[in-house]
Amino acid sequence: MSHIDRTEFETWSRRLQSDFAADLERLDGTAGFRRDRWERGGGGGGDTWVLSGDGPIEKAAVNWSAVWGEVPGGLAEGRAAAGSTFYASGTSIIVHPRNPHAPTFHANLRYFETDVGPAWFGGGADLTPWYLYEDDARHFHGVLRGACERHPVADHRAWKQACDDYFRLHHREEGRGVGGLFFDHLDERLGEVWAFVQELGGLLSEAYLPILRRRIGTTVTPDQELWHLRRRGRYAEFNLVWDRGTRFGLQTGGRTESILASLPPRVRWDYGVEPAPRSPEAALVEVLRRPRDWT
Amino acid sequence: MSHIDRTEFETWSRRLQSDFAADLERLDGTAGFRRDRWERGGGGGGDTWVLSGDGPIEKAAVNWSAVWGEVPGGLAEGRAAAGSTFYASGTSIIVHPRNPHAPTFHANLRYFETDVGPAWFGGGADLTPWYLYEDDARHFHGVLRGACERHPVADHRAWKQACDDYFRLHHREEGRGVGGLFFDHLDERLGEVWAFVQELGGLLSEAYLPILRRRIGTTVTPDQELWHLRRRGRYAEFNLVWDRGTRFGLQTGGRTESILASLPPRVRWDYGVEPAPRSPEAALVEVLRRPRDWT
Repeated sequence: MSHIDRTEFETWSRRLQSDFAADLERLDGTAGFRRDRWERGGGGGGDTWVLSGDGPIEKAAVNWSAVWGEVPGGLAEGRAAAGSTFYASGTSIIVHPRNPHAPTFHANLRYFETDVGPAWFGGGADLTPWYLYEDDARHFHGVLRGACERHPVADHRAWKQACDDYFRLHHREEGRGVGGLFFDHLDERLGEVWAFVQELGGLLSEAYLPILRRRIGTTVTPDQELWHLRRRGRYAEFNLVWDRGTRFGLQTGGRTESILASLPPRVRWDYGVEPAPRSPEAALVEVLRRPRDWT
Repeated sequence: MSHIDRTEFETWSRRLQSDFAADLERLDGTAGFRRDRWERGGGGGGDTWVLSGDGPIEKAAVNWSAVWGEVPGGLAEGRAAAGSTFYASGTSIIVHPRNPHAPTFHANLRYFETDVGPAWFGGGADLTPWYLYEDDARHFHGVLRGACERHPVADHRAWKQACDDYFRLHHREEGRGVGGLFFDHLDERLGEVWAFVQELGGLLSEAYLPILRRRIGTTVTPDQELWHLRRRGRYAEFNLVWDRGTRFGLQTGGRTESILASLPPRVRWDYGVEPAPRSPEAALVEVLRRPRDWT
């Protein structure tokens, strides 16, 4: 099998979008998603759904797209020759809770085809806490590992490592968060990978929402709030400086507002911030510097 | 003349740092600069001075450095072959006022040498308003143009255009601000360029501080404050996505805190923000999309 059925992928990835968005609206309880449909000049389009209100979820984006056409300017994702055609579809999710004790969550699941070579899947899920709750990291990684263990095609160890390597702020010598899974260019045993991708997508709510639910009511001090905004600056640094998808999208005429819907709503940059020794803030940074095995 | 005297440049650029910083402290009236001296492993170091307080200047960085050694990983600034040695020194300035009616200011003046070819100067100055006051743009550009007109080696028309071209958020199809001057790789008539650079440096306070003084007391509405934070998001996008100096510095092991001292202190990213038609906010965006001749 060198391709899967595009319609089948689109139906599934659209349902992932609507199911996850519904879960978030239920949990937030105060705001609904603004839903924007957009068309792409060169072919295809998408649905960008953004929630921002006064409830526990300060900002969330749950985006779906299916785009196709000529490969833009040179290599797309390093796989397609210039001038060839491509098809890419997927769902991406980002959740920025208001409470600094609740971690930010990101996931995306994508399917690609070109007119040369086999099709492939890419994606993953990762968690970015601002305060370290080891139970949260263990729960999150445990759910992802469980999905991997039920699918011989999945390589949990390699994809956990790839996640730590990819979501790295090299200029800070620290990771963006406590990791998760990251995989790309999976073009062998495509049917088995597709079965894994569906299971992973179906588990995203279970991986994240219990954590969100138990942290959104935590009491917050002004110092914790300040730390949250400053650490969100690091999140923005990663997305704008290092994230290949963001940079590729911005430089090849992707829909800017959909791409940058991933950025945190409120951010601070202050000079020379260092957490106090042996503080909870220092404990987080320690884990970001030296990723752990959480399962 | 293929080089100038390094000591002379360093003496001058250090004085520019201390003079401009003193002017800012006087104007702010509430806070002083935190002064950090740092050493670079491969050779040289710098003085990073950052002001952040509760006064009219929310954050300012006035940085000086002189670094030298092996050219890091490939081409430095596109001029030096890998493995050769370089020397680079300069002063850079960024001022983020608290009041949205007061524009952000940026300038830097740099001198480079390598062990092959002639030395060169680079730099410039540019203004980023959040609300358009045409008088401010005219004053700023007028001072810069005056400096150019007194030096036959300066090409005001080309450097104004280069500034508009360089400080462009291509993914937004708009400029960062209302421009100013931008020049680089000026390696001919080096003595004349050096005289121009000294005049320009000496005029930076005159170009910016009168504008700052007359805007910092303007009454601010909550909507103007919100606009300010959102537009500062665009400033951060430019610096992190497009600015060659920032990206080069972060990717080659420059001192992260000094490089990112340029980022605004408080920032917002909200989805799908559009200014109301015929509003002051829309008037600014119009000018950012289609740069004007202000002199």
